[in-house]
Amino acid sequence: MVVPSLIRRKRDGGSLEPDEWRALVDGYVAGRIPDYQMSALLMAVVWRGLSADELAALADAMIASGDRFHRGPLGRPVLDKHSTGGVGDKVSLLLVPMVASCGVAVPMISGRGLGHTGGTADKLESIPGFRTGLSLRETEAQLSRIGCAMITQTPEIVPADRKLYALRDVTGTVESIPLLATSIMSKKLAEGLDGLVLDVKTGSGSFLPQLDRSLELARTMIALGETRGCRTVALLTAMDRPLGRACGNALEVEEALQGLAGEGPEDLMEVTYALGSEMLVLAGVERDPAAARRSLESAVSSGRALEMLGKIIEAQGGDPGVIEDPGILPQADAVEVFRAPIGGTVAEVNPHTIGMAIIELGGGRQIISDPIDHGVGFVITVKPGDQVTARQPLASVFARDDAGIRLGLDALRRAIVIGDEGSLSPLISHRVTDAGTQVL
Amino acid sequence: MVVPSLIRRKRDGGSLEPDEWRALVDGYVAGRIPDYQMSALLMAVVWRGLSADELAALADAMIASGDRFHRGPLGRPVLDKHSTGGVGDKVSLLLVPMVASCGVAVPMISGRGLGHTGGTADKLESIPGFRTGLSLRETEAQLSRIGCAMITQTPEIVPADRKLYALRDVTGTVESIPLLATSIMSKKLAEGLDGLVLDVKTGSGSFLPQLDRSLELARTMIALGETRGCRTVALLTAMDRPLGRACGNALEVEEALQGLAGEGPEDLMEVTYALGSEMLVLAGVERDPAAARRSLESAVSSGRALEMLGKIIEAQGGDPGVIEDPGILPQADAVEVFRAPIGGTVAEVNPHTIGMAIIELGGGRQIISDPIDHGVGFVITVKPGDQVTARQPLASVFARDDAGIRLGLDALRRAIVIGDEGSLSPLISHRVTDAGTQVL
Repeated sequence: MVVPSLIRRKRDGGSLEPDEWRALVDGYVAGRIPDYQMSALLMAVVWRGLSADELAALADAMIASGDRFHRGPLGRPVLDKHSTGGVGDKVSLLLVPMVASCGVAVPMISGRGLGHTGGTADKLESIPGFRTGLSLRETEAQLSRIGCAMITQTPEIVPADRKLYALRDVTGTVESIPLLATSIMSKKLAEGLDGLVLDVKTGSGSFLPQLDRSLELARTMIALGETRGCRTVALLTAMDRPLGRACGNALEVEEALQGLAGEGPEDLMEVTYALGSEMLVLAGVERDPAAARRSLESAVSSGRALEMLGKIIEAQGGDPGVIEDPGILPQADAVEVFRAPIGGTVAEVNPHTIGMAIIELGGGRQIISDPIDHGVGFVITVKPGDQVTARQPLASVFARDDAGIRLGLDALRRAIVIGDEGSLSPLISHRVTDAGTQVL
Repeated sequence: MVVPSLIRRKRDGGSLEPDEWRALVDGYVAGRIPDYQMSALLMAVVWRGLSADELAALADAMIASGDRFHRGPLGRPVLDKHSTGGVGDKVSLLLVPMVASCGVAVPMISGRGLGHTGGTADKLESIPGFRTGLSLRETEAQLSRIGCAMITQTPEIVPADRKLYALRDVTGTVESIPLLATSIMSKKLAEGLDGLVLDVKTGSGSFLPQLDRSLELARTMIALGETRGCRTVALLTAMDRPLGRACGNALEVEEALQGLAGEGPEDLMEVTYALGSEMLVLAGVERDPAAARRSLESAVSSGRALEMLGKIIEAQGGDPGVIEDPGILPQADAVEVFRAPIGGTVAEVNPHTIGMAIIELGGGRQIISDPIDHGVGFVITVKPGDQVTARQPLASVFARDDAGIRLGLDALRRAIVIGDEGSLSPLISHRVTDAGTQVL
């Protein structure tokens, strides 16, 4: 194999064969193919895209670079959910225990904060003692014991993605639909899933703010999942404002606990029930979305879902006392209320501004080695379209010190725009399957 | 400066500022910017191209990475010629002494063989003792002493190009008009030229076989030269067949000596006179092409041009005895005549096949460290359109041994196509200046 000739073929709009993708990925992981050739190839892929066959071949090659889940005699369907990332998105913290309480196994691999968005693994680690870094074998054991797990990508799973993602991050080759799709789907397919539900975020706070690009990403991931035997459905959900009220690691865990106790904010619960219903129907444990939703509501109202979260926390070394007493979560030292500077209609609550402010407050990373201050963040109680009066409390800042409070208040002043009009875009706008796209 | 954000801007079709190009080139040469970021950026440039401002900024940054010629009190115009590369192209060996005999200083930096094409420096080194690796200061001294020099790119001149070219070669980023143009023009502009004549090859044996791409390359280099005070003119010349009869290092030196003695093949002399006339007119030493051509013809017929080549050879450590006795050039051990397998019209003499066969015979490099066997090659006495009879001698193979003879005869069988019809395309098809393009 002559790598430059493969790069030239892709550059000129041609396709690479499955054995060529396999040789490229294997050679790159083994260090035989240098970074500078891979980054040029990746830029050619950003330019020319990948055919359906190439997409599957690249995903297969990435999966084959590592180990996979061995589900063993679980006796129940295995499903997962993936979100493309947002601000205030604590859905996984509710969804995994809810769905697991309804008879579906969930081996969720989740990520760290990326750019302005938060990561489920970072949120979980605000629970004292919680370990997200389980090995594949530990995860398999936990899955057969309690039916679910919430871990980060281990070194055993799709090592090609870890190496490729690190390279893409520094070479301007992240924003490519085929590369995003293979990165996400290779990890999910390595879980050996029966089905997958995708939460594709749209709007200004998402990674692909244009609707057509979000739809293309959804369709690309669905095609890839279906061709590899994983039933895949996507919902497009709004990320032009934060989801729920809490934004910041421990604050979001607390809101998730409220949600599992039946007291979550409406938008958060809607998205969680919608995604969960898709999972139960895909899994075949419920016949239709209405029945699935009743089943999930019952898991919450009966306390079974909250109890399941307690089991996950205990199994992964965390302090299950947090279920009864969220006060053991890391707390901010300083809290201050933000009030409406004028009366009017909320035109915007900008999630990107909020996400970046959380990082500046210490609740996210500027560089990979930064420690995280789990207690900081925001609770924002208004949505676009809400009528507010001058001096009405709209949000709270949670920070480490006075400088953080000032920084947080300044971010809220920029993020929350009050004007003459504003309206709330649909929370769940599209449902995409391999059969087509439905506008909701 | 954040390199990934610059890569993303170029990727998305934006432009980089002059200070950004400067920082990229400086950082790359100094090793602060890694190969993998530069190769991704280069692929984005292949994709998106460069604006006129970016082209000039990149060339300036590349030139600034090294030292330049200091012409000192030469008292004569300084010009050069560049060819985009072909097979049998020994024009420089004739042109430099001819033009220098007419009162123009020529500090020619020439290259090694590249792909299937030969390199002037390799050809010169078939003369026993000839040194192409002069330093910049040695070259300046020779220029003021005898008025011309023929060297290879020294480490002092445009080191950025050496490093970038080596990276492009292994990352599929060679075939880009703005990158080809900046690579060529940065080295020429570092010579501090008053004018430059470009020999842009077209046809199957050139690097850009499509006419529109050749024209675009010519116009790009002309715009870049003119914007930097170097008057630039291009001639498009045919490379759908070898130029002249001899192909191979020592064989080409011998043909060049014949040409300077007034006995060169017609096509070789036509191209040489045409390029030389452009140089004399650009230099202002002759008023019009007709007068310039008479001046060049007189330099040949008087023996002054051949004498000048002797001075170059002597000044650069070579054995000037070669002028009187070409027999001191490296000779092949085996020679065999190739005869027409059938009678008919020569439809094609494929330069790419010939060029690749010279490499296989040992007359070019497979890898950079390969030694060169200067004696091997071909002398081909037919052109497309010629009528031939069965068994008529068409060419000779010069090789090291019988295996080489077999290889050479096989290459000739593939390269020389005889059929019912064939014709010779125009030798010099277009003349391009900053004022426009003239079809000849």
